[in-house]
Amino acid sequence: MKKFQPISELYPHMLHGGDYNPDQWLHMPEIIEEDMRLMKLAHVNTMSLGIFSWTQLEPEEGVYNFSYLDMMIEKIGKNGGKVLLATPTGSKPLWMARKYPEIRMVDQRGYREMTGRRHNHCYNSPIYREKTYEINRRLAQRYGNNDTVIGWHLSNEYANCRTVCYCQTCQAKFREYVKAKYKTLDNLNQSWCTAFWSHTVTDWDLIEAPSDMGEDSVHGLTLDWKRFVSDSYVDYMKSEIAAIREFSDKPVTANLMRNFTRIDYWEMAKHIDVASWDSYPYWHRDDAGIEHADVCFNNDFFRSIKGGKPFLLMESTPSMPNWHDINKLKRPGVNRLGGLQSVSQGSDSVQYFQWRMARGNVEKFHGAVVNHEGSENSRVFREVASLGETLEKLDAIVGCPVESDAAVFYSAENQWALADAQGFNRHNKKHLETIVRHYKQFLDRGINTDIVGYESDFSKYKVVIAPMLYSVSDELIDKIEQYVANGGTFITTYISGMVDKNDLCYLGGFPAGKLKDVFGLWNEEIDSLYPNDSNKVEFGGKEYKAIDYCELLHARGAKVLGSYKEDFYAGMPAVLENSYGKGKAYYIAFRDTGDFLTDFYEGIVAESGLKSSFNGTLAEGVVARSRTDGEFDYVFLLNYRNEERTVNTSAVYTDMETGETRTGEIKLCPFGSIVMKIKK
Amino acid sequence: MKKFQPISELYPHMLHGGDYNPDQWLHMPEIIEEDMRLMKLAHVNTMSLGIFSWTQLEPEEGVYNFSYLDMMIEKIGKNGGKVLLATPTGSKPLWMARKYPEIRMVDQRGYREMTGRRHNHCYNSPIYREKTYEINRRLAQRYGNNDTVIGWHLSNEYANCRTVCYCQTCQAKFREYVKAKYKTLDNLNQSWCTAFWSHTVTDWDLIEAPSDMGEDSVHGLTLDWKRFVSDSYVDYMKSEIAAIREFSDKPVTANLMRNFTRIDYWEMAKHIDVASWDSYPYWHRDDAGIEHADVCFNNDFFRSIKGGKPFLLMESTPSMPNWHDINKLKRPGVNRLGGLQSVSQGSDSVQYFQWRMARGNVEKFHGAVVNHEGSENSRVFREVASLGETLEKLDAIVGCPVESDAAVFYSAENQWALADAQGFNRHNKKHLETIVRHYKQFLDRGINTDIVGYESDFSKYKVVIAPMLYSVSDELIDKIEQYVANGGTFITTYISGMVDKNDLCYLGGFPAGKLKDVFGLWNEEIDSLYPNDSNKVEFGGKEYKAIDYCELLHARGAKVLGSYKEDFYAGMPAVLENSYGKGKAYYIAFRDTGDFLTDFYEGIVAESGLKSSFNGTLAEGVVARSRTDGEFDYVFLLNYRNEERTVNTSAVYTDMETGETRTGEIKLCPFGSIVMKIKK
Amino acid sequence: MKKFQPISELYPHMLHGGDYNPDQWLHMPEIIEEDMRLMKLAHVNTMSLGIFSWTQLEPEEGVYNFSYLDMMIEKIGKNGGKVLLATPTGSKPLWMARKYPEIRMVDQRGYREMTGRRHNHCYNSPIYREKTYEINRRLAQRYGNNDTVIGWHLSNEYANCRTVCYCQTCQAKFREYVKAKYKTLDNLNQSWCTAFWSHTVTDWDLIEAPSDMGEDSVHGLTLDWKRFVSDSYVDYMKSEIAAIREFSDKPVTANLMRNFTRIDYWEMAKHIDVASWDSYPYWHRDDAGIEHADVCFNNDFFRSIKGGKPFLLMESTPSMPNWHDINKLKRPGVNRLGGLQSVSQGSDSVQYFQWRMARGNVEKFHGAVVNHEGSENSRVFREVASLGETLEKLDAIVGCPVESDAAVFYSAENQWALADAQGFNRHNKKHLETIVRHYKQFLDRGINTDIVGYESDFSKYKVVIAPMLYSVSDELIDKIEQYVANGGTFITTYISGMVDKNDLCYLGGFPAGKLKDVFGLWNEEIDSLYPNDSNKVEFGGKEYKAIDYCELLHARGAKVLGSYKEDFYAGMPAVLENSYGKGKAYYIAFRDTGDFLTDFYEGIVAESGLKSSFNGTLAEGVVARSRTDGEFDYVFLLNYRNEERTVNTSAVYTDMETGETRTGEIKLCPFGSIVMKIKK
Repeated sequence: MKKFQPISELYPHMLHGGDYNPDQWLHMPEIIEEDMRLMKLAHVNTMSLGIFSWTQLEPEEGVYNFSYLDMMIEKIGKNGGKVLLATPTGSKPLWMARKYPEIRMVDQRGYREMTGRRHNHCYNSPIYREKTYEINRRLAQRYGNNDTVIGWHLSNEYANCRTVCYCQTCQAKFREYVKAKYKTLDNLNQSWCTAFWSHTVTDWDLIEAPSDMGEDSVHGLTLDWKRFVSDSYVDYMKSEIAAIREFSDKPVTANLMRNFTRIDYWEMAKHIDVASWDSYPYWHRDDAGIEHADVCFNNDFFRSIKGGKPFLLMESTPSMPNWHDINKLKRPGVNRLGGLQSVSQGSDSVQYFQWRMARGNVEKFHGAVVNHEGSENSRVFREVASLGETLEKLDAIVGCPVESDAAVFYSAENQWALADAQGFNRHNKKHLETIVRHYKQFLDRGINTDIVGYESDFSKYKVVIAPMLYSVSDELIDKIEQYVANGGTFITTYISGMVDKNDLCYLGGFPAGKLKDVFGLWNEEIDSLYPNDSNKVEFGGKEYKAIDYCELLHARGAKVLGSYKEDFYAGMPAVLENSYGKGKAYYIAFRDTGDFLTDFYEGIVAESGLKSSFNGTLAEGVVARSRTDGEFDYVFLLNYRNEERTVNTSAVYTDMETGETRTGEIKLCPFGSIVMKIKK
Repeated sequence: MKKFQPISELYPHMLHGGDYNPDQWLHMPEIIEEDMRLMKLAHVNTMSLGIFSWTQLEPEEGVYNFSYLDMMIEKIGKNGGKVLLATPTGSKPLWMARKYPEIRMVDQRGYREMTGRRHNHCYNSPIYREKTYEINRRLAQRYGNNDTVIGWHLSNEYANCRTVCYCQTCQAKFREYVKAKYKTLDNLNQSWCTAFWSHTVTDWDLIEAPSDMGEDSVHGLTLDWKRFVSDSYVDYMKSEIAAIREFSDKPVTANLMRNFTRIDYWEMAKHIDVASWDSYPYWHRDDAGIEHADVCFNNDFFRSIKGGKPFLLMESTPSMPNWHDINKLKRPGVNRLGGLQSVSQGSDSVQYFQWRMARGNVEKFHGAVVNHEGSENSRVFREVASLGETLEKLDAIVGCPVESDAAVFYSAENQWALADAQGFNRHNKKHLETIVRHYKQFLDRGINTDIVGYESDFSKYKVVIAPMLYSVSDELIDKIEQYVANGGTFITTYISGMVDKNDLCYLGGFPAGKLKDVFGLWNEEIDSLYPNDSNKVEFGGKEYKAIDYCELLHARGAKVLGSYKEDFYAGMPAVLENSYGKGKAYYIAFRDTGDFLTDFYEGIVAESGLKSSFNGTLAEGVVARSRTDGEFDYVFLLNYRNEERTVNTSAVYTDMETGETRTGEIKLCPFGSIVMKIKK
Repeated sequence: MKKFQPISELYPHMLHGGDYNPDQWLHMPEIIEEDMRLMKLAHVNTMSLGIFSWTQLEPEEGVYNFSYLDMMIEKIGKNGGKVLLATPTGSKPLWMARKYPEIRMVDQRGYREMTGRRHNHCYNSPIYREKTYEINRRLAQRYGNNDTVIGWHLSNEYANCRTVCYCQTCQAKFREYVKAKYKTLDNLNQSWCTAFWSHTVTDWDLIEAPSDMGEDSVHGLTLDWKRFVSDSYVDYMKSEIAAIREFSDKPVTANLMRNFTRIDYWEMAKHIDVASWDSYPYWHRDDAGIEHADVCFNNDFFRSIKGGKPFLLMESTPSMPNWHDINKLKRPGVNRLGGLQSVSQGSDSVQYFQWRMARGNVEKFHGAVVNHEGSENSRVFREVASLGETLEKLDAIVGCPVESDAAVFYSAENQWALADAQGFNRHNKKHLETIVRHYKQFLDRGINTDIVGYESDFSKYKVVIAPMLYSVSDELIDKIEQYVANGGTFITTYISGMVDKNDLCYLGGFPAGKLKDVFGLWNEEIDSLYPNDSNKVEFGGKEYKAIDYCELLHARGAKVLGSYKEDFYAGMPAVLENSYGKGKAYYIAFRDTGDFLTDFYEGIVAESGLKSSFNGTLAEGVVARSRTDGEFDYVFLLNYRNEERTVNTSAVYTDMETGETRTGEIKLCPFGSIVMKIKK
C-alpha cells in the first residue's frame, strides 16, 4: 500500500494541539502572550481557532471585525504554529437569533427554541444559510491562502443538539424530498405500508414529520425523515464548503462524533477532504474493555469512511471531561496511550479540547493542557509535552495507511431501521454493543480491521462480519452473495436479513431472498429471552450460555456447528457454516456472554489466515495495531493495564522514540506503549 | 343454570379466527387467495374485518368505496367463513384530521395532537360523531343483513391512546355535566370540598378539567372528570350503535382491555350485546403465577359485566406480541392452554391478533397465524390449526354459563378514587394486585368466581371478597350490611370504607358508618411501612409476616383471630371475624406475603362450602374451571407447568376431543389440557 | 447571654397549636364548637388562621366578607386561645386567576399555568401585588390590634410550587436587575464569560432567563437569575409586610422550608421579625441518623438566620404526613421527642399542620390533632395533649438563646453555584449531605452549633466548618484569613475555594488567592471516583476508605496529617493542618465513609475545647442540646432509640416537668426525653 499525502503539504507532520479560544481572554493580553510561551513548552503545533467566534467577528449585522483573528493567526504563525480555522456557525449570535426567529430550531412538538445555546439553528433556513455563506466567504477570502492556516474546521459537531429541526421550512422540504423520491402517492403508500392503521396519504400535503405527539407508527416515514435530516445536514455542510471554495482550496474537515446516528457519516464523508472526530471515552470504568474496543472501532470507522485515508483525532481531553456523569482523571500515561492508539489506527494528529480552561460556564472544568492555575507546572501539562516530543519523531508515519484483511459492517441506515423495530427486546437491542463485541475479537488479536457500509467494496477482505444486519437492500444481498461466491468469509447473527430499504419485511422467509441459500438455512422464529432466562449451546465440544435472543433455524444445506441444548428448541441449530461457491457463510443464531465468540473467532482467524500486526504473542491487555508505508510497518504496542507487561518478538525493530534497534523481549510499563519500525 | 343463546344464531359454534387486514394486500391478490386456502387449513372460521379501513372506504370526504369489503365478505363467505365487521372509527383518515382539526385530541396542557396515529380523536366532537354516524350507517345498510356478517366490532380498543381529550368542546360538556349533577354552586363546593386551598368555585364557568399544569389537588373534580370521560366514551359508543341500528340488529361488541381504568366497563357493558376483550399476558415470566391469575380475573370480569353471558376472546397472539418490553415466544401448547383457559371461563371464541403479519410499521413483528414466510409450514400455524380442530368439538359448550358461588369486588370507580389518594404508600398501593392475590386463592382451588361491582346483586353468592374497598357509597354500605345480615360471608382488608362517592372521608371513624357494626371494629390508624419494615401476625397458631400496611384496629364485638406480635401495636387485632345477623364479616388489617391468605382462605372455603370445579385433588400448577348447560358440567383441566402432571378423579367423564369415556388417573403433558364432559 | 423578648408580649409562653381551617366547616357549626372543646383538652393555645381563605374573604372582586374571621377570632379568644393570622396570598381565588391571566405563573418554556392549585402566582405581577396589598391592608386594619391576634403568618411556604415565574413581566424586571448590577455590556459580558460559545450580549434586550429550551450554559446568567428570583420573593414579601404595617406592628413571620434553595433565607430573614419553619422528617427510616441530623441542622439554621433569636416550629405532623412516598406513623413518644428537639434548639413553639383533617382533597390523610373520627379518643390526640402539658411548664425557656462556640457554613449562594457546576460527579455532588455529616459530629457530642453564611461574624466561634466551600467572594476570603489569623480554627474540604461571586474560576491555582497561604497548600487536580472505586487514607495510624472525591494537593507549608495509600497519588497529602497566625486551618482532601470524620473531629473538639451541653457521657442515640437565660442552663436529653437509655450526670438539676431536683443516673424510656434546669 502507498502512503497518502499529508493532510496539508504546508505541514507534513503529526499535528498536536487543540481548540484554542483566545477570544475569551482579549481583555487579558498577558494570558495570550503566556499561551505562546506555553505552546512551545508543550510541543504543540496546531490550534483550532475561531470555533465559536461569530459574535466576535460579526458583532452586529453586516459589521465585520477580524482584528482578533488577524492578531492570533499572526501570533501563532510567528510562534511556529499552524491553524485549523473554524467556520463559526456552530453557535449563532444572540442578535441573529433574536432578529430572525426562523433560524432557531423547532422541536417535534412545534416548540421553537429560545435564543441561547449552541448548535440549535435550522440548517434548512434560507436566512441561516445566507448568513453562513457570507461569513465563511469572508473568512476564506481573508485567510484562505494564509500560510499559517492549514485547513478548515467546519462548524462544530454537526447535530449535537437537543433535537433536530421540525420547523415549517423543514417540513416543506421534507414533503418535496418525499415527492421527489416516490413520484406517485400509490408508490408512497405501498412503500410506507400506509394501509396499516388507515394512514393512507391521499395528498402530498398531508405528510408531516414523525412526532411523539403525532405520527410515530409509520416506519417508512420515520426512516425517510431520518434520511432527510441527515441529507439536510450534509447539504448544509456543502453550502459551508461552497463558500470557502470561493477563495480557498485548503482541506476541509468536520469534527464528527462517536457512535452518532443523526447523520449518516458515510454520506457526509463524501464531501469532506479529511475525516476527524472527537473522542471522549470513559477511561478506567468497570467496562473498560468494551469501552476501549468501542473507541478503537470508531477510529477504524472514521478512517474507513474516507476510504482508508488518515483522519484527525480532533478532540480529546488531556485529563478529564466535564460532561460525563463522573469525570475521572486519566491516569499517568493514559493520555499518551489514547493518543498513540488513534495514531496507530490512522490518525495523523492528537488534538485536545482544550488548550486552556475557560474561566466560566459549562465547560470550565473540562480538562485542558493549561488549567486555571495557568503554568506549565502540572502533571497534565507534562504529559502533553511528553507526547508532543514523541509525535515529533513520527513524521515517517504521516500519511501511512492501515492494511486490513478483515472488515466489520456498520451503517446508520441499519441502526435507524433497527431502532424503530417494535419487537424482540424493544428497548435494549444492543446492536452497536454487539458489533463492538465481534470487532473486539479482531482487536484483541492484533488484527487490523476496516469498517464497511452498504456501498463499500467487500472483495478486498478475507473476512467480513455483519452482526444484526437487520436491513438489507437488494444491492447488499447481491453483494454478499457475490462476495461469498467468490471466496469470501461472511459472518452474521440473529436479527439479520429481515427488512428492505423501506423497512418492509421481506416475504418468503428470513433471511431475505437468496441469503437463505448463501447461509443455507431458514429462520422460522425469534425467541426473545427475559433477563433471567438462558439457554445453552454446544459448539466444538464445549457448552456456552445463550441470552437475550435465540433464533429457531432450520438448516437447509448448512453444516450445523452448534446446537441448542435446552427448551423446546433443544437440538435445533445455533451455529451454522455454509459453503457457498468458493466461500463460506456463518450464521450465529444466539447471543452469547463472550466466551463463545472468543472460541468461534479463534477458528475463523485460523482458517481464513488473518494476521496479527505483531509478530509475537500478545500479553493480556496489550493491543497491537500497525500502519505501513509499503516498505516499513509501523507497529504500535499499547498496554491497557496498570501493570507492567512483557512480550517477545523475533522481529528486528527500531524504537521510533529512542532510535535503538532491538529484538526479543519488550517490557511495557503500566499503561506504557511503544512504536516500532519494522522492515516489511 | 340455563345456556345462553349463541352470540349469533347464524353460527352456533366456537369462533376461531382473528383480525384480518386484506386492505394491506390489495396490490398482491395472490396473497388474498392464499389466505383463503390457509384459513381452511388453520380451522379458522371467523374474521374481524375492516378495523382500520376508513381511508380505504372513504378516500375523500363523502366519496365512498366499498368494493374491497364487498369482495372480501363474499370471498370469506364462499370459503365457509364468517365476519365480525368493524366500524372503522379507531383511526381517522389523514384528510379528515387535517380538514377538521377539532376532531383531534387535545392533551391536558392544551396541546392538540397532530394528524397521525390512531384512537386519538375527540369522542365529543360533533363533526367526528357526524362522520362516524354516516360511515357506520352506510356499513350497516350495506352489510347489516349479509349472512356472512355475524356481528359488529365497534371501533377498536376505546381510549387506548396517549391521553384523553381536554379540548374546549370537552371542557364545555364537562361544565354542563357538573352543573347538571350538582345544580347549585353551594352543593358543588361542598361536594368538592373547595374551601380547601381557596378553590371555591364562584361561577360555573371557572371549572376546568384537572391538569398537571393546572388543578390537580381537588379530588372531587378529578373523580368527576374521570366519570365524565368514561361517560363520554360510552356515549360515543352509543352513537356508533345507533347508526348501526338503523339497518342492522346483529349483536355489537367492543374489544375491551385488561385492567383498563379510563372507562368504567360496568357502564359500557350495559350498551353492548356481548363483551369481548384483548388478552396479551406476559407468558413465561418470573411472575407467571400472578400474571396468569390476573388474566383469569379478567376473563371472569368480562363475563360478569354482561351478567354471566359468554364473552369473546377477541384478540390474543398465537406466538409473541410486539409491544412488550421483551417479546418472548409462547411455548408449544401454550396457545391452546391460553385459548382453552378463556373458553373455560366463558369465552365462546379464540380470536387472534392477527391473521397475517403486516409487512411494515409498528406491528409488523406481532405474532400472527401466518408469518412473513407465508405458508402453513410453521410451528405456530400448526398449533393454531390444532386448537381449531379442538374447538370444533366443543359446540356443546357454546352458550354455557359459569356457575359461581364466590365473587370478588372490582370497579373502576374504586380504582379512580384510590389512585388519587395522597397518603399510605403513595405510588405503589397495589390495589389491583391485592385483588388478584385474593382472587387467586379461589382460582388455585378450582372454585368458579364472578366479579361484582357497585350495582351487582351479592345475594346469590356464599362469599364476597372486597380487598381495599376504599370508596363506599351509602348504597353499597347498605348492600354489604344486608348481605351479611342475610347470611353472606364478606371479607375486606385494610384501606376500606374510607370515602364516599365524592371522595370525601366519612366522619365518625373508619370503616364508614354501620360498617363498623358489620365488622365489629373501629380503625384508628393506618401504619404504612417502608420496604425494609415488617411486623408479624399470629393467626391459627402460626406466625405470618406483615408488610406495607398495618392498621391499628379496635375490636368492638368482633372476634380476634389474629394479632400483631411486634412494634407498639403488638397485641392489637390484625384479623377479625364478626358474626352479624346470619352471616359473617371478616377484616384483614395487614398485607401479608402470600402464605397467610392461603391459610386464611383454606378456612373460609371449608366453612362456606365452596366447591371446586374438579372432583379430585389438583396437582400444583393445574387449574380447573367449569361451565355447565344444566345437565352436564364441562370441566377444563389446564396444566400451567412445563412438566407432566397427574391428577385423579372418581368422576366418569367423556374426553371432548377423543370421545372416550374414562375415570381415574389423568395425565396432562407439559402445558397440556383436557376438556371433560361430566353428567351433573 | 441574655434572653430575647417573647415573640409576642401578649402571650409569653410556649406556643402550641397549628393550622386551623374552620372555613372548611362553616356548614357544620357543631364541628367548630367541638373544636373549641377539644383545643382545651389538647392543651393547645395558638391557631394559625386564614391561610387559604382569600375566596372566603373576597368572594368577588372588591367585595369583602370578614364575618367568618370575626367569628373565629372571637371564639378562639373567648376559649383562651391566640391566633397567628395569615395573609391569604398563598392561593389566589379562581375568579382572580381567570380574570387576570397575568397573575398566573409562566414556566421556563413560556407555558402559563391554568387557574388552579396554590402558590403559583407571579410574585412580580403588579396586579397581584395590588390585590395582595388591599386584602392585607384590610386584614391589618380589622385585626391588627385585636388582643387575640399575636402575630402575622405571611402567605404560605413561599416558592413551594412547580416552577418559579418566567413571564414577560419577570423577564423585563430581570433585565432591569442585570442592567442595574452590571451597568455596561462589557462588564456584563466579562462577568458572564459570554465569549464562551459566542454568547456575547450586544444589547440588554437580548437577555433571557435561563431555560431548558433556551440558554442553560451561561452560569453567570443562571446564578443572577436565581438571585433575582430570590430577591423577587423577598420583595414580594416586603410588599405584604408594608400593607400590614399600615395598621399593625405585631410580629411577622413566614413559614419557611427545610433545605430549600429557591430563596436565600439569609436575605429573607432580614425582613421578618421571627423565623419559622415547617418540619416533616422521614421518621423511622433506614437513614434515620442523617435524617435526624438534617432536621437539627435546619433548626439551628432557622435560629441562626435571625441572629440566634428563638424561632417557631410552625408546622409538623402529629402523626404521619401525606406527601411522603410512604407515610409512616410516628411512634409513641416521637411527637414529644421531635417537638422538644426543636425547642432545645431555640423554638418557642410546637405547631402542627393540622388541627383537624379535611374531609377532601390532597391533604385529607395528612396527620392532624383531630382525625376524621373526630374525638379526643385517639393515641395521637393524647400524645399532643401530653406534650401541651409539658410545654406549659417551660415558660422559663421562652426567649432563651442557644450558646454556641461552633459554627457550620451554609448558604444558598454556594448551593446555587455548586449545583450548576458541570464536572466532578455531576448529578450527585452531595453538598448538603456532606455539610450535615460534618454537622452531625458536633450534634452527636452535644455541642451547640450555629449556622453561618457569607455575611456572618465568625469571630465569636472557636471552630467554623465549611465543607465544599465552592464559591468564595473576596470578602469571604478576607474573613476566613482574618478569622484564622486571629486564632480561629477553620475546616474545609475538597471542592472549595474555586469560583468567585460570578461563578468564574479563580486563576492562579485553587484554593483561591491567599487561601492557599491560609491552608498552606495548592490543589492541582480533583479526581472523581466511580461508585466502585476507592482509595485509602492513612491518618493517625489508622486507615480510612476514600470515595467519590480525592484531591491531589501539594503541601506548601501545611503539616500533612494524612496521606493517600493507593493509586498514582499514593503518598500525596489527604489531610492537612496549617498554623496560620494565631489559628489553624484544616483541609480534608477526600470524602470518607464516616469513621474518618468521627476520629478527625474527636481531635478537633479536644484541641479547641468545645463543650457538650450535657455534663456527662451521652449514651448512643441520645442527643443533648441546651438553651440558657444566663443564670440557668436548660438542658434537653432526647433518646432517639426505641430502647431505654441510661446516662449519668454529676450536675444537680431540676426536672422541669416534675419539679424534682436530682443528680446521678437518668433513665430515658424508649424515645424518651427530659428537660433539666441547671444552675450555670
